[in-house]
Amino acid sequence: MLGGSISSGILRCFPSIKVIGYAHRQSTRVKAAELAIASEIVDSLTDSVRKSDIIILATPISIFKDIFEQISPALPTGCVVTDVGSTKVMPHCWAQAKLPNTVHYVGSHPIAGAEFRGVDFARDDLLDKAVCILTTTKKTDPQAIEVLEKLWTRLGCSVRLMSPAEHDKIFANVSHLPHITAASLVNATNGGQINFAGKGFLDTTRVASSPANIWTDVLMSNSKNIADGLDRIIKELQKFKEATQNGNKKQIEKLLDKARNKRAGLIEYKIKQKEII
Amino acid sequence: MLGGSISSGILRCFPSIKVIGYAHRQSTRVKAAELAIASEIVDSLTDSVRKSDIIILATPISIFKDIFEQISPALPTGCVVTDVGSTKVMPHCWAQAKLPNTVHYVGSHPIAGAEFRGVDFARDDLLDKAVCILTTTKKTDPQAIEVLEKLWTRLGCSVRLMSPAEHDKIFANVSHLPHITAASLVNATNGGQINFAGKGFLDTTRVASSPANIWTDVLMSNSKNIADGLDRIIKELQKFKEATQNGNKKQIEKLLDKARNKRAGLIEYKIKQKEII
Repeated sequence: MLGGSISSGILRCFPSIKVIGYAHRQSTRVKAAELAIASEIVDSLTDSVRKSDIIILATPISIFKDIFEQISPALPTGCVVTDVGSTKVMPHCWAQAKLPNTVHYVGSHPIAGAEFRGVDFARDDLLDKAVCILTTTKKTDPQAIEVLEKLWTRLGCSVRLMSPAEHDKIFANVSHLPHITAASLVNATNGGQINFAGKGFLDTTRVASSPANIWTDVLMSNSKNIADGLDRIIKELQKFKEATQNGNKKQIEKLLDKARNKRAGLIEYKIKQKEII
Repeated sequence: MLGGSISSGILRCFPSIKVIGYAHRQSTRVKAAELAIASEIVDSLTDSVRKSDIIILATPISIFKDIFEQISPALPTGCVVTDVGSTKVMPHCWAQAKLPNTVHYVGSHPIAGAEFRGVDFARDDLLDKAVCILTTTKKTDPQAIEVLEKLWTRLGCSVRLMSPAEHDKIFANVSHLPHITAASLVNATNGGQINFAGKGFLDTTRVASSPANIWTDVLMSNSKNIADGLDRIIKELQKFKEATQNGNKKQIEKLLDKARNKRAGLIEYKIKQKEII
């Protein structure tokens, strides 16, 4: 879904750029070709990178390392390699270990997506008004950063730079943790009850419908930050439990009010940044 | 918001029925009159019920008891009293204790709403395709149930009957708990990080923007079920923490897959029931 959306977005925004697509499954390649998601769909991973200036990985994170290893011999000198994975520390490590030093790696994380899976759901405007984080280290090539800044900006993103470690800490809280609470909410509700769910439950748990394999990799590759975040959220839940059990009305209202005000500030920020309307 | 929506829905669906509106705040009454939310807005609580066949309370739960007490002397014999609060055990207790036995109480819980507050957000189609729970006991008058079944059905709801205790147990899980996890997610995220939130975080925390006073009352009046639900959800979160810390990929994927499949079943049910499109 994300790979296909980026590819069709590039075709729309950069009419002179050619996009070579590759997917592991043959059925995906056939569908992508039918949908004309890319300029060309090839049947070999190494062939897909052989003549490319920019290589974008949009697979589950756990196979980045293998892909880096497999594509290395075929990578053109000076090309830019990036990925759109939701964690960044591990991809930077693998890039450092596996990619030749004749190419430039920068991490990308466009904050866009949906709970849907597969090339059928690709849309060429998915990145419109999205934020895209680029992760860099002291060693990152400034020109490679510039190339990716131009790419993501033209696709509609506003680009921010940070270190991989900072990225993973922030997104444990604002992205990975919500996925875990959503899944936990669903798993904690028994079958007979769940059908009474209203719009609140459906929204609160939407991201629990995201592909399990992709999110398993995200959680696996950010375990320390996630464990810390889970401790914090369990602490917050326990505050509610204590206040409710003690009939402490003031404390319950204080906790709810704090969240309400904080979220109002967030919405205000998003509107000011034109990230939401 | 909910009271005004019900009132304007009744005006639309039952053109011959007169709706008398009352609100505690004068400013709300002025606004409601300007918006023509009801046939008539009166300035006294007791006047609002004096000639009514059906009385619908749409205030925070904690003041139901006082309202029952105040309106009791003015209630016409044989009238039906209901409320739209999100918990039902306590309202039934208060009705039993405070209402005269010349009137009939039935609990109502239309599963509709939004995080917005106030009569400005009233809309006459809010209840379209909603589920409305009626809570009854052995003593509940069958004719009063029938009257309310007709009312909510005509407003677009599909009506289900259950006991107050069963209601509160179910809605602790599918409604009250999501409000707590949403607020806890927001409260657990620090200010510098929260602005990086994407669509997932925004959806997962939407209900945290709900009015704090209304939800304080809901949580206060359902404390036992909520404490039990919080225990269950904390247990689920701890499963994720353990699996993540141990790098147990199989277990993480199992937990995510379970939630994904369960939610897929929920969506399928909702579509079949035509509650969502």
